[in-house]
Amino acid sequence: MSDFFFATKFTFYFDIVIKFVFLCTHTEINYDMKKILFILSALIISLLIHAQQRPEPQPAPDTFEKFKVGMAGYTFVKFDLDKTLEIMQKCDVHYLCIKDFHLSLNSTDEQIAAFHAKLKAKNVTGYAVGPIYMRSEEEIDRAFEYAKRVGVKMIVGVPNYDLLPYVDKKVKEYDFKYAIHLHGPDMPLYPDADDVWKNVKDLDPRIGMCLDIGHDRRNGKDPVKDLKKYKSRVFDVHIKDVTGATKQGYSVEVGRGILDIPGFVKMLRKVGYDGVCSLEHERNMDDPFLGIAESIGYFRGVIAATKK
Amino acid sequence: MSDFFFATKFTFYFDIVIKFVFLCTHTEINYDMKKILFILSALIISLLIHAQQRPEPQPAPDTFEKFKVGMAGYTFVKFDLDKTLEIMQKCDVHYLCIKDFHLSLNSTDEQIAAFHAKLKAKNVTGYAVGPIYMRSEEEIDRAFEYAKRVGVKMIVGVPNYDLLPYVDKKVKEYDFKYAIHLHGPDMPLYPDADDVWKNVKDLDPRIGMCLDIGHDRRNGKDPVKDLKKYKSRVFDVHIKDVTGATKQGYSVEVGRGILDIPGFVKMLRKVGYDGVCSLEHERNMDDPFLGIAESIGYFRGVIAATKK
Repeated sequence: MSDFFFATKFTFYFDIVIKFVFLCTHTEINYDMKKILFILSALIISLLIHAQQRPEPQPAPDTFEKFKVGMAGYTFVKFDLDKTLEIMQKCDVHYLCIKDFHLSLNSTDEQIAAFHAKLKAKNVTGYAVGPIYMRSEEEIDRAFEYAKRVGVKMIVGVPNYDLLPYVDKKVKEYDFKYAIHLHGPDMPLYPDADDVWKNVKDLDPRIGMCLDIGHDRRNGKDPVKDLKKYKSRVFDVHIKDVTGATKQGYSVEVGRGILDIPGFVKMLRKVGYDGVCSLEHERNMDDPFLGIAESIGYFRGVIAATKK
Repeated sequence: MSDFFFATKFTFYFDIVIKFVFLCTHTEINYDMKKILFILSALIISLLIHAQQRPEPQPAPDTFEKFKVGMAGYTFVKFDLDKTLEIMQKCDVHYLCIKDFHLSLNSTDEQIAAFHAKLKAKNVTGYAVGPIYMRSEEEIDRAFEYAKRVGVKMIVGVPNYDLLPYVDKKVKEYDFKYAIHLHGPDMPLYPDADDVWKNVKDLDPRIGMCLDIGHDRRNGKDPVKDLKKYKSRVFDVHIKDVTGATKQGYSVEVGRGILDIPGFVKMLRKVGYDGVCSLEHERNMDDPFLGIAESIGYFRGVIAATKK
């Protein structure tokens, strides 16, 4: 109901100016005087128009944090890039971790350029690629070349354990960060942050983790403590919420599960995390949009309310 | 990706039980023994099924507050009741302030009963009616009779100033609460909380306000301070956010404007407000759904993060 009487005041002043101009042009004054009066009237009109502009929305409330709020491409596994970007724009989210179903590993340079142009038009940055599963040296080679051609400096990946020395070699060669995605009790590879840490701590410091707070918790761990413990190797974060600290716990809208989101946000700030917190929403995946918006809203509400 | 290996463990145990039952029924044991073994097997199966049940989502995080999160019917001015309830259910919101376009003031008792049945099916309670504008004693009579037939104990209304003595008489007669909706600089009636207070302070204590935090701010006031000052007369709250503390400020998703939502939530708790905080979302009203979900999420994130 707020727009109801919006134009009233403006119309009132505009009317005065019009009358004033009419008076100037229809009375006996010299040409120079008319000119000055005309310029003055134009100035007043432009000032009025300026004053009338409605104030813009504030920047999203996470803007003043070191970390950013983003979106994991997997959230949109059932939707194309256009729909993904439409929802991201509506939710005011500007960082995307690129999944292969939106930009195939076989993409030509032209396809990659077209992809980036689409993102740019919606003010979105593709900040990394993945998660990408890597079961052989060839798959690792391919993923690194893909990331290089896409122009990102980070891969979120899941390499077989025995391939870690090869990953170590590749991060040195490409100077990329490699964030291993942990996946809870569902898979034998990298169930939680402890497992990733144990496997990477003696490797190149550019090998670390994508801390998926839902899967970490589902494996019985505490993502707040794990962020604190492993901060030097946390390069990416997947935010979500889950219903239980077991395999049976499943993904829900952020705020409706058991995760301590305020505690996690405080810890992000405390350890000075400067990467992206990307929503990986795995609920109602055929119609996830309201859940995505609610989750992003919740996370931002927590960011705002935990500021000192 | 969390459901991937969900059934594996269950299938394994189920297989054992089936083999066990097969063994029992195909070996030489007496009837009673078979019966006991059969019952035992059934018991094990039922225990396994129970153990397999996935934990439910938590109740929405505002559950342990005195105040509730609700929806102002006006948010859905362009949508019918079915769509309204669908979105409320998706956002896990259970309190609705009923607008006339969803339940006409002329409704028959049958229509009212059908309306309540629809709400009940979605676990939604209609907690009040309004806002209703009242320009004459007849319109006041009609609104009170309507509220009585709908079965609510509160009307959100906008009566002409000179009708306040008549409203005073009516609240005594019906024992209803009457919450005057304030509307910022757009209208001459009740621009802010100060104005409502000034007009109702000497009337029956059942006459108070619906504190619309957006409109109060747009009239240059501070809704956090106003809630504190006028707590005894705040019966309903409209939550929203706005871009500026002037008439030109307009409604945006909660969290994207200038309002101090964390401060407001803390004050709700401090004054022990036990009514409903209803989202009156007035942005992109042709397609408001993501904005509604984001706003509800944000408000709940703030509730969670400001808990002691």
